[in-house]
Amino acid sequence: MQPLRIAIAGTGMIGAVHADAARRAGARVVGVAASTPERAKAAAVRLGAERSFDHADELAAAPDVDVVHVCTPNALHGPLVRRALAAGKHVVCEKPLSTELSDALELADLARESGLVNAVPFVYRYHAMAAEARHRVRGGAIGDVRLLHGHYLQDWLSGRADDNWRVDAAVGGASRAFADIGSHWCDLVEWVSGHRIAALTAVVQTAVPERPASGSVSTEDVVHVLLRTDRGATGSLVVSQVSPGRKNRLWFEIDGAEHSVVFDQENPESLLLGGRTRTETVVRDPGTLSAEAARLSPVPAGHPLGYRDCFAAFVADVYEAVRRHPTDGAPDRPLHPTFADAARTARITDAVLRSAHSRSWIEVR
Amino acid sequence: MQPLRIAIAGTGMIGAVHADAARRAGARVVGVAASTPERAKAAAVRLGAERSFDHADELAAAPDVDVVHVCTPNALHGPLVRRALAAGKHVVCEKPLSTELSDALELADLARESGLVNAVPFVYRYHAMAAEARHRVRGGAIGDVRLLHGHYLQDWLSGRADDNWRVDAAVGGASRAFADIGSHWCDLVEWVSGHRIAALTAVVQTAVPERPASGSVSTEDVVHVLLRTDRGATGSLVVSQVSPGRKNRLWFEIDGAEHSVVFDQENPESLLLGGRTRTETVVRDPGTLSAEAARLSPVPAGHPLGYRDCFAAFVADVYEAVRRHPTDGAPDRPLHPTFADAARTARITDAVLRSAHSRSWIEVR
Amino acid sequence: MQPLRIAIAGTGMIGAVHADAARRAGARVVGVAASTPERAKAAAVRLGAERSFDHADELAAAPDVDVVHVCTPNALHGPLVRRALAAGKHVVCEKPLSTELSDALELADLARESGLVNAVPFVYRYHAMAAEARHRVRGGAIGDVRLLHGHYLQDWLSGRADDNWRVDAAVGGASRAFADIGSHWCDLVEWVSGHRIAALTAVVQTAVPERPASGSVSTEDVVHVLLRTDRGATGSLVVSQVSPGRKNRLWFEIDGAEHSVVFDQENPESLLLGGRTRTETVVRDPGTLSAEAARLSPVPAGHPLGYRDCFAAFVADVYEAVRRHPTDGAPDRPLHPTFADAARTARITDAVLRSAHSRSWIEVR
Amino acid sequence: MQPLRIAIAGTGMIGAVHADAARRAGARVVGVAASTPERAKAAAVRLGAERSFDHADELAAAPDVDVVHVCTPNALHGPLVRRALAAGKHVVCEKPLSTELSDALELADLARESGLVNAVPFVYRYHAMAAEARHRVRGGAIGDVRLLHGHYLQDWLSGRADDNWRVDAAVGGASRAFADIGSHWCDLVEWVSGHRIAALTAVVQTAVPERPASGSVSTEDVVHVLLRTDRGATGSLVVSQVSPGRKNRLWFEIDGAEHSVVFDQENPESLLLGGRTRTETVVRDPGTLSAEAARLSPVPAGHPLGYRDCFAAFVADVYEAVRRHPTDGAPDRPLHPTFADAARTARITDAVLRSAHSRSWIEVR
Repeated sequence: MQPLRIAIAGTGMIGAVHADAARRAGARVVGVAASTPERAKAAAVRLGAERSFDHADELAAAPDVDVVHVCTPNALHGPLVRRALAAGKHVVCEKPLSTELSDALELADLARESGLVNAVPFVYRYHAMAAEARHRVRGGAIGDVRLLHGHYLQDWLSGRADDNWRVDAAVGGASRAFADIGSHWCDLVEWVSGHRIAALTAVVQTAVPERPASGSVSTEDVVHVLLRTDRGATGSLVVSQVSPGRKNRLWFEIDGAEHSVVFDQENPESLLLGGRTRTETVVRDPGTLSAEAARLSPVPAGHPLGYRDCFAAFVADVYEAVRRHPTDGAPDRPLHPTFADAARTARITDAVLRSAHSRSWIEVR
Repeated sequence: MQPLRIAIAGTGMIGAVHADAARRAGARVVGVAASTPERAKAAAVRLGAERSFDHADELAAAPDVDVVHVCTPNALHGPLVRRALAAGKHVVCEKPLSTELSDALELADLARESGLVNAVPFVYRYHAMAAEARHRVRGGAIGDVRLLHGHYLQDWLSGRADDNWRVDAAVGGASRAFADIGSHWCDLVEWVSGHRIAALTAVVQTAVPERPASGSVSTEDVVHVLLRTDRGATGSLVVSQVSPGRKNRLWFEIDGAEHSVVFDQENPESLLLGGRTRTETVVRDPGTLSAEAARLSPVPAGHPLGYRDCFAAFVADVYEAVRRHPTDGAPDRPLHPTFADAARTARITDAVLRSAHSRSWIEVR
Repeated sequence: MQPLRIAIAGTGMIGAVHADAARRAGARVVGVAASTPERAKAAAVRLGAERSFDHADELAAAPDVDVVHVCTPNALHGPLVRRALAAGKHVVCEKPLSTELSDALELADLARESGLVNAVPFVYRYHAMAAEARHRVRGGAIGDVRLLHGHYLQDWLSGRADDNWRVDAAVGGASRAFADIGSHWCDLVEWVSGHRIAALTAVVQTAVPERPASGSVSTEDVVHVLLRTDRGATGSLVVSQVSPGRKNRLWFEIDGAEHSVVFDQENPESLLLGGRTRTETVVRDPGTLSAEAARLSPVPAGHPLGYRDCFAAFVADVYEAVRRHPTDGAPDRPLHPTFADAARTARITDAVLRSAHSRSWIEVR
Repeated sequence: MQPLRIAIAGTGMIGAVHADAARRAGARVVGVAASTPERAKAAAVRLGAERSFDHADELAAAPDVDVVHVCTPNALHGPLVRRALAAGKHVVCEKPLSTELSDALELADLARESGLVNAVPFVYRYHAMAAEARHRVRGGAIGDVRLLHGHYLQDWLSGRADDNWRVDAAVGGASRAFADIGSHWCDLVEWVSGHRIAALTAVVQTAVPERPASGSVSTEDVVHVLLRTDRGATGSLVVSQVSPGRKNRLWFEIDGAEHSVVFDQENPESLLLGGRTRTETVVRDPGTLSAEAARLSPVPAGHPLGYRDCFAAFVADVYEAVRRHPTDGAPDRPLHPTFADAARTARITDAVLRSAHSRSWIEVR
């Protein structure tokens, strides 16, 4: 079996994570592109790529590339994805697909119509214990879901001196905290629970209204959301990038009629399974878990898996889909998160901003 | 110094907690009243009271009683409080003061006008580490408060077979989960932060619409709230009495510009003090805490204080106010929570129900 | 029923804890004695005692006292206990009974022969979850016990400038860290497990050999012990008063053939119940616990109990034994820890020091 | 730069971990060998190796292999290592090097004399927070080390029906629990603290004396150790493979004069840094850590690293040493753990068994 040939546009932290995952999945990293040819050359050495491309456009259409990974700033996602799909490449694109909802929806349509494999790294689905939570909730083990709640808290923008291209709506999109991390929470909780957010109301806050380089900031630092699901549950969510000491706390609790289940991305080796008379710590132990969670557990209990293991499992699944393509056809319901999933979180993000603006409940399609 | 003479109307679990606290504060428990004279007699033995009263009304006006503790079902609070105040007694009344907002406001006015000591057991203020949180937040140690969030989760009504007088709006009031426990969260977080809830929007849910004895249930099991404070912070809160495995999880996080502070009532011996570069576990250690937290720490670090210690500290403070009355006059701003504080939470509760009904934001006075 | 009349010799922190517990149990604190008459007077006010005694000797024989609590420095325990027993008083004595093993054994014999109620506050037995652990281990729920291990760590003597009468062997006894806190661990683990330490070997360390006031220090700061039990288990234990950040960490794990059970005195509201396929957090919930643990749970789950609640439960049990005396006779196996239990820990302490000195295993009778 | 060519003898769980790490480090996995040629073929597909070898001997001397990874059962380590070194291969060998102390020492000598890169996966050194602990302890941040204590607990052999080749001394060596996991604890704690175990006494226990396939068991399930270090600290350690619910709990605490530091391999994203007045949770955050810990942190704080990330970092360091060889010469003090480190743990293991047998203290060279 020939190794897949993949290339990565964008060589920041997340580009390195893609490269590591690709290599673990047995692919050849044939090339990388960065913001300048010089940076691309340096990144090729650093990430162990076979060569560098002077321009991401060139990379996206290179004949010896099977899969294109788009890891650039948000505003460049759309053009690169279009070019790669046009050249018949399978595409892994960081979220958001686009800074505009309409464009995100169009990209998802384009990808679907292309028949090519398309994927977005909602990688928290690949924590074994998130998969175990899904297995239990969807299998009815906790009873009917009554409420879903939690938060996604970071602190990297809590200081007045912190700055980043993402705070500029023109580059990162109109929503920042929600588009960047709130979307992960929604994707994960919908995926685990099987419930879909049907309506929501939100309040947003820009806690640091002025940043050194970006100047006046229009994107939000904080979002609180109330929600109702299509199946009658209620929920709420706090999203913040200004909570000191919170590095990447994606935490949720789903309360069912019989049990609650609690997951914390920063401590992903176990679930809390609450009950009226018994509260269990479900440990990531391939010997006792569901088939899917065991599949995501390449090492025994007590040997922690981490973020890069999730990411590697996601990429391995995507490449498996690529290998089966087109013989098997693109499966109707791929295991991995797709552009369609990213488009859905774009709809939710849009509803959040509109709701906060109008101080009213908004239906989410 | 003669011991204070106190009497307790209502002899359930919380009545026993009042009796224990009174005794620890050096008071004589001269009498108790219950739903029947027989129950009162049995309770007098069980709680170590000197005698029993046949009727709570009699207790509320007994000449040899200095302080009346009202621990009956909610609907009886108002009449007993009125009678006790009329008889010149100092009063400790369980919240809510009344099942009706207008009545609660009237009771608070009556108490104020009487000049008598009046208190409501928002006892979580008496956890040493809650006091420490207040000291730090109000003293500016965490920087400007940006967001406040958390939850208060219980599970004792999660089963379809669970029932209680509180689920009946006629006996317990129109709000159940929020009035019962959400009010504690709001009182505590306002007290710690110095922020006051200025506006809110809420969604409520009755997860178990039918209970065995109560029949159809009109009070809520779940509330999610979004809020804005008078000083520009945003916040959110989940309140639930149907979250399996959650016994009494009052949890909050206050995120300031420099630090976050996290308190968990079920683990009250420490605070989490988050920071960008350093996250500290602040241990309840009288040697290193603020004066108020040290005052609430009668035993050294590592010797856990608990719920009954809070309660005892609250009662001791109330009795201290009684002892100084009327020489010192009722202080304008007593240390302990008063009827005015209870009236405020009644206003918030009322806003929650109105907001949930109208699906809109409501201002809170 | 007339309240018991009790008196307390020694008015430091622990004396105040005894007073609080006595009052909660419905007793009258008729008097206190301290190192000087003036201190006794001040303490009487502070602790709410009816009067002060000029000398502890006087207190121990006062005609209107039913129970004497001995809370003085260790070297004074023996004389006061002898005087109180001679005067026909029931006695609660802080451990160690004496700074000398032979004297401790003699005091235990005296107390037994007197037929009077005698008690030593190994109060950690009164944590509800320690009682639950005992119920489960002794009832066979964890299978045969294979190993017992843990530690008891404090930090109050970790600094070179820290000092205390206890560091002086002449006042506190030849062993300090082990006699003071190691004894608690051994009492608790033997009580929970039903195993008795049959042989041990130890190493001791004086980490701070010079203290400001005490000068050269001969008592140990640290002890590590290996042990074998009478029923074939092995074990080990670390005791330290110089572990920075550890305030009062009494922690043990008992590993059985089917389950392990873990208790942490600083988080006494739950047990960890480990298993091959399922690990449970057993919450202090009177509705689901054993009868004894429920008896020790006067408040519902989620309302933390603490150190002073343990202490109060211990004192209440002792007073109950006093009330039944002599009608019921001193029960052969009282519920509460007695002088015989204190004598046993004195034997273990003696074996620890001899073993450390001889670098060999020592049998413990 | 040509990728290194590596081969793996032994294709169990740990062989797969080596393969993953090798691929992440950019090496080509040119071959694998297993217990039979058929198993090797299947493993080559599963692990993504380029080909399979019929015999491990063949693999160890194959001309197109730069580095040989020895992952076979213990008794085969020695022969394969000798063959590989003789063929001029760099060697990564699982511990123990040999089932016999004398042989382990000889292998370490052979490796040293060969000048070839030799490494043993004491991979816990590669947890970023273990490196951070080392940085702080060795840099004096916690003050003089007074005591070291902890445990390494597993449960995979707790059942009477559990069995494995390791329980047979003829295949696995005279020590099992200690050689297998106790050695990791000693390596890690010596590496972090800079102290070396100078003398020890131990007790061992075979909790399950009969196993289904292995029959009568002579190797230990449990070890408790007391120790003294070359620099005057005392310590103790519990090692068990029969502690239900403990999957891989390698936990240690080092108590210094100013601070304590606590590490838990199952929660490797933070350290507890205890202090008299302040207890900090040191989070794995490359922005605030020491250079070495930051080097081991390829992803930001809050994105957990795990066991396979440690392993990958270890292998990357070994390959870096290989790439610099022989130009740079084998560094006198390589960063990675070597055969000399494995020989040291073999000495400690030998002392443990002799001490347990003689019930006496044994000096460790």
